Amino acid sequence: MKKILKSLAVFFVISCACFAQDSVLFKDSEPASTNVPNAQFPRITPDLRVIYRIKAPDAQKVQFDLMKKYDMVKDTAGFWTVTTDPQVPGFHYYQLWIDGVSVSDPASETFFGVGRMFSAIEIPNAGEDFYTVKDVPHGDIRTKWYFSKTTGEWRKIYIYCPPGYDNSPKEKYPVLYIQHGGGEDQRGWAIQGMTDIILDNLIAEGKAKPMLVVMETSAARKPGEPPMQMRPPTPPAPGERPRMRFSFDTYKEVMINDLIPFIDGNFRTLTDGKNRAMAGLSMGGMVTTQVTLSNLDKFAYIGCFSGGPRITPQDTLSKVYNGAFADPATFNKKVKLFFISNGTVEGNSPIEAGEILKKAGINNIVVYQSPGTAHEWLTWRRSLHQFASLIFK
Amino acid sequence: MKKILKSLAVFFVISCACFAQDSVLFKDSEPASTNVPNAQFPRITPDLRVIYRIKAPDAQKVQFDLMKKYDMVKDTAGFWTVTTDPQVPGFHYYQLWIDGVSVSDPASETFFGVGRMFSAIEIPNAGEDFYTVKDVPHGDIRTKWYFSKTTGEWRKIYIYCPPGYDNSPKEKYPVLYIQHGGGEDQRGWAIQGMTDIILDNLIAEGKAKPMLVVMETSAARKPGEPPMQMRPPTPPAPGERPRMRFSFDTYKEVMINDLIPFIDGNFRTLTDGKNRAMAGLSMGGMVTTQVTLSNLDKFAYIGCFSGGPRITPQDTLSKVYNGAFADPATFNKKVKLFFISNGTVEGNSPIEAGEILKKAGINNIVVYQSPGTAHEWLTWRRSLHQFASLIFK
Repeated sequence: MKKILKSLAVFFVISCACFAQDSVLFKDSEPASTNVPNAQFPRITPDLRVIYRIKAPDAQKVQFDLMKKYDMVKDTAGFWTVTTDPQVPGFHYYQLWIDGVSVSDPASETFFGVGRMFSAIEIPNAGEDFYTVKDVPHGDIRTKWYFSKTTGEWRKIYIYCPPGYDNSPKEKYPVLYIQHGGGEDQRGWAIQGMTDIILDNLIAEGKAKPMLVVMETSAARKPGEPPMQMRPPTPPAPGERPRMRFSFDTYKEVMINDLIPFIDGNFRTLTDGKNRAMAGLSMGGMVTTQVTLSNLDKFAYIGCFSGGPRITPQDTLSKVYNGAFADPATFNKKVKLFFISNGTVEGNSPIEAGEILKKAGINNIVVYQSPGTAHEWLTWRRSLHQFASLIFK
Repeated sequence: MKKILKSLAVFFVISCACFAQDSVLFKDSEPASTNVPNAQFPRITPDLRVIYRIKAPDAQKVQFDLMKKYDMVKDTAGFWTVTTDPQVPGFHYYQLWIDGVSVSDPASETFFGVGRMFSAIEIPNAGEDFYTVKDVPHGDIRTKWYFSKTTGEWRKIYIYCPPGYDNSPKEKYPVLYIQHGGGEDQRGWAIQGMTDIILDNLIAEGKAKPMLVVMETSAARKPGEPPMQMRPPTPPAPGERPRMRFSFDTYKEVMINDLIPFIDGNFRTLTDGKNRAMAGLSMGGMVTTQVTLSNLDKFAYIGCFSGGPRITPQDTLSKVYNGAFADPATFNKKVKLFFISNGTVEGNSPIEAGEILKKAGINNIVVYQSPGTAHEWLTWRRSLHQFASLIFK
């Protein structure tokens, strides 16, 4: 106990001293909003450079890794400092390397990404406020345990409920199921994705229908089944090019047999396919196509953000995804929206996939590209913002 | 994008290889439940020692700090390893020191504690399952934004709603407001504290009344006000010994003027003092006494876990806490339970305070000591378990 109290006292005194000193030294920059309370670094300059400083008198080499490794420079007091190039706005994961060991930054909030808790920095974007908490009615995000018979385990899910959900006991809502990326989990959309804030704002502006958004991890194993990375990837379908593709067959069972019945049984939902959407980012786009394209009766709206559909001119379109596109008329009748997006820095694969599908007679395609962003959360926040405004209408 | 995908691929391959190798080498121990998925270290042995290993070929010194600093030993392949003494069951914060820099462990989930994101390890306790997810009806924890006029900001709160809350639109519930410790925030009780699991289990056994539990951070500043650690601590009341005590006056205003009206206005609550409780751990005990003892009409149940009330034989009891105890008859009429607890390793201050209060005519005191635990979360989970079973009855 004494040790913890001592740590706290030291923490308070250091915070206090640093606060006063740093405010003067770095007065033109501001601590990042993703810092823990009172942490003065990383700081962001008006031209969106990041200034970072850490005390490590005994370390031989310290690097600040914000998608690019910056060697830091040590002063005589043992502080290492660096100023980065100007950064693109948005939410970027970063890490420290201390004598060759990759760790998260003690001064940052951490986020589950790349398979572990990671530091991240929010670079503000002047003039873009769709993910800012505003004076509008707010829904909430509920964390809840439910039992999956498929995996034989209690699973923790996050459910966004729109403003007014509790006060309209007779109203029923459509549901969007949304998937995180590889190395992330169900927390991704709730925290990094700011799903509640984006939806609250869209609903307040009348741009999106009030809906539930369900977030669950695609990590799912039946008893005795090895972890996903130890299972063989899905073999190519006939007519499909061979390529690495993870199988989400177990998660598909969880979702169809356990999760959807749980949500429909415990929340006031509209339970037909026309009132159900699914979307995912990166690996979550793969999960989305694997689940929805073999269950077209259950999902009228499909969103792939920086992750699929995996379609190129070399594919025989009628054969990929187990023939989901083989009969365009049926597909068009069932799927009201097939939304494909990425960031412009990622290339043109959504445009190409969209063209192939349209040429084959698949309608209701919307392609979106987030200007100036890469494979990162601002691309996906913007994709959700677009997608959520198009569904259930 | 390529970099992230490469990191992920490397992560998957390393996880896979380590998994196979470690399962053989350390077959009598199990990875901690607080590890990130697939992380093999830290591991726990049957006699509750912790085995930890990390690769850091270029580091000069690596220490594993689980309330006691263990020097780790490096092998020729660059792996550092250590086995600790047997640990007391419960949830313990820990950190790594890499060449003198304190960081959290990349293999652990992180938790906001001691003013930053910290690693922690859950040491299992055979035979104690009140914080295990069981096959019982589950409530949920809701995260919600509300606006505080006192601080002029949107604040994020966590609210536990009991099982059945959504299906009983006419039922109204009592409310427990519960406070985290110093260096923690509103996430403490939701995550480290496992409040939802503890309450779900108690309610299922019929040992606690269905109630809401509201979690908010006591960090609160009016516009222009400095951070708490830069404000002067509360001066002693007349008759009270002088001692360091932070002032939670701003938070008291937030709670009384903003939070409670928001909860009562937006949830189905019983709004009289007899149906409102407040409790807190460590610094949260200080917050609790400062808020409740000056608002006895509003709180019939008070809980101090490892944190107050600050009463010793040297105090003039009628003068401390602005005279809250000066009229025992009135106090006894208003306060149905004054619960004081800690872990036995922390000493006997709750017993002493309880004796002083009882001698002065304050009834309805319950003292609880968590066997074998210190200033840590198992003490507080057990305290909540006890306290929640005694209130609103």
